[in-house]
Amino acid sequence: MPAGDLGYPSPPPSQATETPVEEDDAWVWAQIKAEARRDAESEPALASYLYSTILSHSSLERSLSFHLGNKLCSSTLLSTLLYDLFLNTFSSDPSLRAAAVADLRAARVRDPACVSFSHCLLNYKGFLACQAHRVAHKLWTQSRRPLALALHSRISDVFAVDIHPAAKIGKGILFDHATGVVIGETAVVGNNVSILHHVTLGGTGKACGDRHPKIGDGVLIGAGATILGNVKIGEGAKIGAGSVVLIDVPPRTTAVGNPARLVGGKEKPSRHEECPGESMDHTSFISEWSDYII
Amino acid sequence: MPAGDLGYPSPPPSQATETPVEEDDAWVWAQIKAEARRDAESEPALASYLYSTILSHSSLERSLSFHLGNKLCSSTLLSTLLYDLFLNTFSSDPSLRAAAVADLRAARVRDPACVSFSHCLLNYKGFLACQAHRVAHKLWTQSRRPLALALHSRISDVFAVDIHPAAKIGKGILFDHATGVVIGETAVVGNNVSILHHVTLGGTGKACGDRHPKIGDGVLIGAGATILGNVKIGEGAKIGAGSVVLIDVPPRTTAVGNPARLVGGKEKPSRHEECPGESMDHTSFISEWSDYII
Amino acid sequence: MPAGDLGYPSPPPSQATETPVEEDDAWVWAQIKAEARRDAESEPALASYLYSTILSHSSLERSLSFHLGNKLCSSTLLSTLLYDLFLNTFSSDPSLRAAAVADLRAARVRDPACVSFSHCLLNYKGFLACQAHRVAHKLWTQSRRPLALALHSRISDVFAVDIHPAAKIGKGILFDHATGVVIGETAVVGNNVSILHHVTLGGTGKACGDRHPKIGDGVLIGAGATILGNVKIGEGAKIGAGSVVLIDVPPRTTAVGNPARLVGGKEKPSRHEECPGESMDHTSFISEWSDYII
Amino acid sequence: MPAGDLGYPSPPPSQATETPVEEDDAWVWAQIKAEARRDAESEPALASYLYSTILSHSSLERSLSFHLGNKLCSSTLLSTLLYDLFLNTFSSDPSLRAAAVADLRAARVRDPACVSFSHCLLNYKGFLACQAHRVAHKLWTQSRRPLALALHSRISDVFAVDIHPAAKIGKGILFDHATGVVIGETAVVGNNVSILHHVTLGGTGKACGDRHPKIGDGVLIGAGATILGNVKIGEGAKIGAGSVVLIDVPPRTTAVGNPARLVGGKEKPSRHEECPGESMDHTSFISEWSDYII
Amino acid sequence: MPAGDLGYPSPPPSQATETPVEEDDAWVWAQIKAEARRDAESEPALASYLYSTILSHSSLERSLSFHLGNKLCSSTLLSTLLYDLFLNTFSSDPSLRAAAVADLRAARVRDPACVSFSHCLLNYKGFLACQAHRVAHKLWTQSRRPLALALHSRISDVFAVDIHPAAKIGKGILFDHATGVVIGETAVVGNNVSILHHVTLGGTGKACGDRHPKIGDGVLIGAGATILGNVKIGEGAKIGAGSVVLIDVPPRTTAVGNPARLVGGKEKPSRHEECPGESMDHTSFISEWSDYII
Amino acid sequence: MPAGDLGYPSPPPSQATETPVEEDDAWVWAQIKAEARRDAESEPALASYLYSTILSHSSLERSLSFHLGNKLCSSTLLSTLLYDLFLNTFSSDPSLRAAAVADLRAARVRDPACVSFSHCLLNYKGFLACQAHRVAHKLWTQSRRPLALALHSRISDVFAVDIHPAAKIGKGILFDHATGVVIGETAVVGNNVSILHHVTLGGTGKACGDRHPKIGDGVLIGAGATILGNVKIGEGAKIGAGSVVLIDVPPRTTAVGNPARLVGGKEKPSRHEECPGESMDHTSFISEWSDYII
Repeated sequence: MPAGDLGYPSPPPSQATETPVEEDDAWVWAQIKAEARRDAESEPALASYLYSTILSHSSLERSLSFHLGNKLCSSTLLSTLLYDLFLNTFSSDPSLRAAAVADLRAARVRDPACVSFSHCLLNYKGFLACQAHRVAHKLWTQSRRPLALALHSRISDVFAVDIHPAAKIGKGILFDHATGVVIGETAVVGNNVSILHHVTLGGTGKACGDRHPKIGDGVLIGAGATILGNVKIGEGAKIGAGSVVLIDVPPRTTAVGNPARLVGGKEKPSRHEECPGESMDHTSFISEWSDYII
Repeated sequence: MPAGDLGYPSPPPSQATETPVEEDDAWVWAQIKAEARRDAESEPALASYLYSTILSHSSLERSLSFHLGNKLCSSTLLSTLLYDLFLNTFSSDPSLRAAAVADLRAARVRDPACVSFSHCLLNYKGFLACQAHRVAHKLWTQSRRPLALALHSRISDVFAVDIHPAAKIGKGILFDHATGVVIGETAVVGNNVSILHHVTLGGTGKACGDRHPKIGDGVLIGAGATILGNVKIGEGAKIGAGSVVLIDVPPRTTAVGNPARLVGGKEKPSRHEECPGESMDHTSFISEWSDYII
Repeated sequence: MPAGDLGYPSPPPSQATETPVEEDDAWVWAQIKAEARRDAESEPALASYLYSTILSHSSLERSLSFHLGNKLCSSTLLSTLLYDLFLNTFSSDPSLRAAAVADLRAARVRDPACVSFSHCLLNYKGFLACQAHRVAHKLWTQSRRPLALALHSRISDVFAVDIHPAAKIGKGILFDHATGVVIGETAVVGNNVSILHHVTLGGTGKACGDRHPKIGDGVLIGAGATILGNVKIGEGAKIGAGSVVLIDVPPRTTAVGNPARLVGGKEKPSRHEECPGESMDHTSFISEWSDYII
Repeated sequence: MPAGDLGYPSPPPSQATETPVEEDDAWVWAQIKAEARRDAESEPALASYLYSTILSHSSLERSLSFHLGNKLCSSTLLSTLLYDLFLNTFSSDPSLRAAAVADLRAARVRDPACVSFSHCLLNYKGFLACQAHRVAHKLWTQSRRPLALALHSRISDVFAVDIHPAAKIGKGILFDHATGVVIGETAVVGNNVSILHHVTLGGTGKACGDRHPKIGDGVLIGAGATILGNVKIGEGAKIGAGSVVLIDVPPRTTAVGNPARLVGGKEKPSRHEECPGESMDHTSFISEWSDYII
Repeated sequence: MPAGDLGYPSPPPSQATETPVEEDDAWVWAQIKAEARRDAESEPALASYLYSTILSHSSLERSLSFHLGNKLCSSTLLSTLLYDLFLNTFSSDPSLRAAAVADLRAARVRDPACVSFSHCLLNYKGFLACQAHRVAHKLWTQSRRPLALALHSRISDVFAVDIHPAAKIGKGILFDHATGVVIGETAVVGNNVSILHHVTLGGTGKACGDRHPKIGDGVLIGAGATILGNVKIGEGAKIGAGSVVLIDVPPRTTAVGNPARLVGGKEKPSRHEECPGESMDHTSFISEWSDYII
Repeated sequence: MPAGDLGYPSPPPSQATETPVEEDDAWVWAQIKAEARRDAESEPALASYLYSTILSHSSLERSLSFHLGNKLCSSTLLSTLLYDLFLNTFSSDPSLRAAAVADLRAARVRDPACVSFSHCLLNYKGFLACQAHRVAHKLWTQSRRPLALALHSRISDVFAVDIHPAAKIGKGILFDHATGVVIGETAVVGNNVSILHHVTLGGTGKACGDRHPKIGDGVLIGAGATILGNVKIGEGAKIGAGSVVLIDVPPRTTAVGNPARLVGGKEKPSRHEECPGESMDHTSFISEWSDYII
């Protein structure tokens, strides 16, 4: 069922246009408010929730800070404290808002189950965990490590998404479903990457130092894939669901299986043109790989 | 240790008897109350909990609505609102109660760790997530989609079980352990299916439309299995733990491995007689498959 | 980045020294308070949290009982009830404190991302779930099963760590990341074991009885590994990430893949000298196993 | 500042018209929704509150049950339990709704500070305490005394209004400000009575039996007045602020002072024509009583 | 309606018997449990509450600590902290339990609306505020003043009972209704005193030092009475409702009015034989005082 | 016991000095932090509370907004919303901070039971209610009336202090004890006024318009006094506890009793020189008024 069937407007044709970023961000926030207003009208039982989380706020940063503060608080970490922390951090670093908008767009464009921007903003634990991680990461870079780690712990408890605050995450990221994602301290994730649930970007050994994967731009990592060690997943590569990857994967190739092998063979692996992190094509390699097996 | 050792009565010999459904439901509810009463007497520290969740209620629907409302509420989605929503939905559609009873029986019969119906009702996140999903699905079919999606999000946060509200789930389902289960929008799950934790019934690509697995009656899907795309898992099939399945699996066959292959070979796969969704036999294929490997 | 860079003292050179256990426990608790005091001073926003969870308490047991009570409570299981339960149990069985201290040391020594004891105490869901499990297990052995199961359910909801209260877990355990761990009723885990996230120690079939894995001392089980049935993983063995293991694994060997095979071959598997549960070496077998594949 | 200045419609010219009661109740509920909708539009910060308390509900009973459940709950008396109790009681006895509507009208007509029906419904602790008392009284008459007393206790904690559940309270009551009101077990209050804050209708002695005041229709009792014992305050009488009354007061007379005396003298007290409970004239007797004193 | 009609046993004939105190305390606690058990059986909706507050506890101190911790907690003063504080204080000073038992007896004997000990324990804000005050007073005498004052503030917020932690309060006290009671820093209240709601034992001036009333044994102070300054209310005196008392009142006399005068005249005031703090006779002086006025 | 005995520094000799206001405010905030730091050190059980309410904040406005947000929130008015509201209002109007500082000084100087500024800031319900009222009043003047009234309602529920948001309150106000204070819509209170608990500044009749008392600068109103109607209490006047005042009181005179009369007689009332609102002398008139009575 195309999202359009729900009566929501499509996103604007291209985000690569000349539109200045600020204007674009304003357009997304205006969409979110319009969606929430429509939903509040059609569903009175949800109106209170939509007003408190979206419609009573004057900006995306405020809405997001409020929502995250209420989601991540506990009896010992009060919502007021977290709200304050998020709001201050978002206010002091405009790039965080831009990243949030890019992530909202990523979900809206890549996930056919995402019916609206507000759907993602309110309900996607991957989106929410990622925005909270960005704040934790900011705190980490400011050497406010105990606070960053406390936030990290709450994100892991509440969303079952465990991203070390030192990990560097790009923009335009889709964490789809997101439950069980684990990303280690020295991992780096590029832009426009899509990562499914249960994915691990893990370290190895007990030595400190650079020990986690580096994920290039536009990579797609399927559900349950495990990538371990300081390995490089080349830009535009695709990692099949359930794969276990322990060594580098060249750009625009596909690695599948446990242990993972390259589709097309180690010597002359198949190379694809599209950007799997954006096309979300998990299974086009089936014909060459899986069909003969069952 | 047989559950009987705990002094709980066994379930009645067969649920396939002539007993009218309503009478059967009443029997289960009476059992639940008796179990809770016994536990409250033997464990004063738990009595308050048992009274509030079970013993103060006049029906299974009320007990379940109360328990789910308190489990799924948040500071912005109040327990009173959710309680009302669950109670109204359960009251308006008696088939939801019948499905809950079938699921309770499934857990009691198939899971040796399930010591009583009340144990399942109170403590099984898979059972609770499934009942809440049924309400979300009902809302979805009534075009109350924003509410269905908000509920979906709470279920995913609280239970780490992510079932899209559009997905169709049969009766007599056991979600065992349940953490990390992901079931997509156009998936269909038949009756008497058993699904272990970390199982994914996922889509592929970013196109809308029918893109998720169809699971036949009586199927057993082992822990961590990933099934992707609009593939058909035939009735009575068995999917081994950790398998990655991208194409159809014939009825009453067993698929294992990553990538998955059929036990017995693609041409003449072994076929079993029993219904694995009910027998829960995860490992009888070891002799033909795994033994030679290690 | 070495933990020492953060300015925290290293743990004492060896825990195998002659130091009496009680003295050692006191040293760890003193460290925790010192760490918390330093963090409270450097980060006022976190001071309230650190005082309520650590600095206002006179012992590790009290701190842990308070923290777990607040983490695991719900609207129907009050924090005061849980706090009382934890405190009474820890007070009545000193071995629980000793196990907690051993686990704290395990995290501090084996996990390079663990910057301090207090970091583990406050933030590691694996550590917290394990301590709460030990209390549930104690209740189980006292035949307070409904209470043990209610606690089990809360641990699974809050931490996404599902350890049956009957399962026996040794000391010096590191559950790293921990999300999605499932350990069944008759499983036994030895001492000094390290278990990554998404690991399953599962049963098979619906018959009661001894049906879950037995994990020897010093074993390392990688992320997403699934071990099913009453199989024996020999002391010092290593199970690769994503492996599916259905039969015994000999001591000090490495099993990898789905289905798992022994590195070095079934007949003459490679044997390692070090204790992988402590060395945390996940990937040294790459050269012999995975390299040729991609 | 006349309430009309706020742009709210005036109440219909007379509630003594021929309008059937049910129709009238519907009119009030429609007004409440219209007021709430206007306020939600003009004040986004309050919209969430107004939706959750009023706009998401289909009837006055549901709105009131929800609001009281959330106001009166505690960590040991859950909002879901109280909501259920209120809703069931309001549903089973339509006279409770009629009384609530009469009280809303009383506040709107008699209290110039009451700017709208919704203002009273949401914010007047006297109104809310009175409606909750009516439910407690109903429970008392059904011999559900422990529950009635638990509710009584919550009302006294939350609103500082202490009305024994056995006390009989008429309709069209205004408890203005309400803090500190105490009404004893065998007290009876007629219709169209107005009672200010800190008023006591108390008993005397420790014998059981009929020992509290009986207040006639249309009586006005000023702030801080104390009326003790089984005395009769005649219909249309007025009790001055701060008075202490220990014996009967004849109809349509005014008692003032500590100890109270009748304005105009014991033998030929002044009698007024208007109904002070509705006219709210606290001070017209000043000229005859107080003026000469200061 | 006599309390006996509710089917509760009467208190034992005399508390002045030879029964050792400990035995007596045990009898009261046994009564409380029996009452709660009966109520839980007859009222399932309340059973959870009764189990959590009374039936799951092994002693009166534990029950009271639990109940007060949950009543007085806030988002910044956690229930677990308060529970711990109450439990430790009650455990370390047995006289606090004895005082609580004496207060329970006082309510049961003197207040005809008090239907059972458990009714008082759970629902009487005067009783609960008094027990919490005793803990605050204990902390004050231990020079833990900031904590005592924080507790004082919570008691005043939650119960609208404001007793300075330095004030000394005897045993066998009945604070009936209790809302609005204010007792200052240097006030002293004897044994077997009954104090109604809105009573003030206040200071005067801004100088430090002994500036509040001293209330003798067996005094009865009626609703709304205000006693100011370091004055002495003699043992067995009675202060009429609404009186304002600024100078000493001789033993066994009655002061009434604003300004207060002695019944019978200053020179030869009437003297009564009974102990008004126990007889609760508020109004027997009417015939000599008030009758002639109205 | 002089406050100085507790080891706290005295306030600076005079607030009427040349010190610029801003500097003075900074001095008070520094004192508060120093007091809280000392208390946190001496009382670990309270440290968490002191850090969350005071020590983690960078300004008095932030601390106050946080504390009020957490005190006044409810399940339908979230702490995050209230915190935001308070912080924005305090930030936009610096006179609110100045008024808060003046009130803190008033409590510290006039109330011998006030041991420190932080004691007042954290624990005085009169102080807290007054600051929250000032925000509500600000909202009222901005025509955000529904929000002002919702806040008014919460203040009345939580603190039992009921000040209509339209009422105008000066600076340097001490609401001592505060429970039960009621101040109506058109009331005006001058500067440096002290008002005890249970005081009513009430209206009369049901007509709109200016109908509440006007209280001059430096007035002292004793506990339980009731002042009704649009009457004028002259600057420096004193109203005795429990008085009922219905007509004007000349400046620097004392009115006492019910009905109130002027001390010294209507014609030539005694006039005092000091400012009773600051001297807090409640009872110096006893010799001329009350002494002869008892």
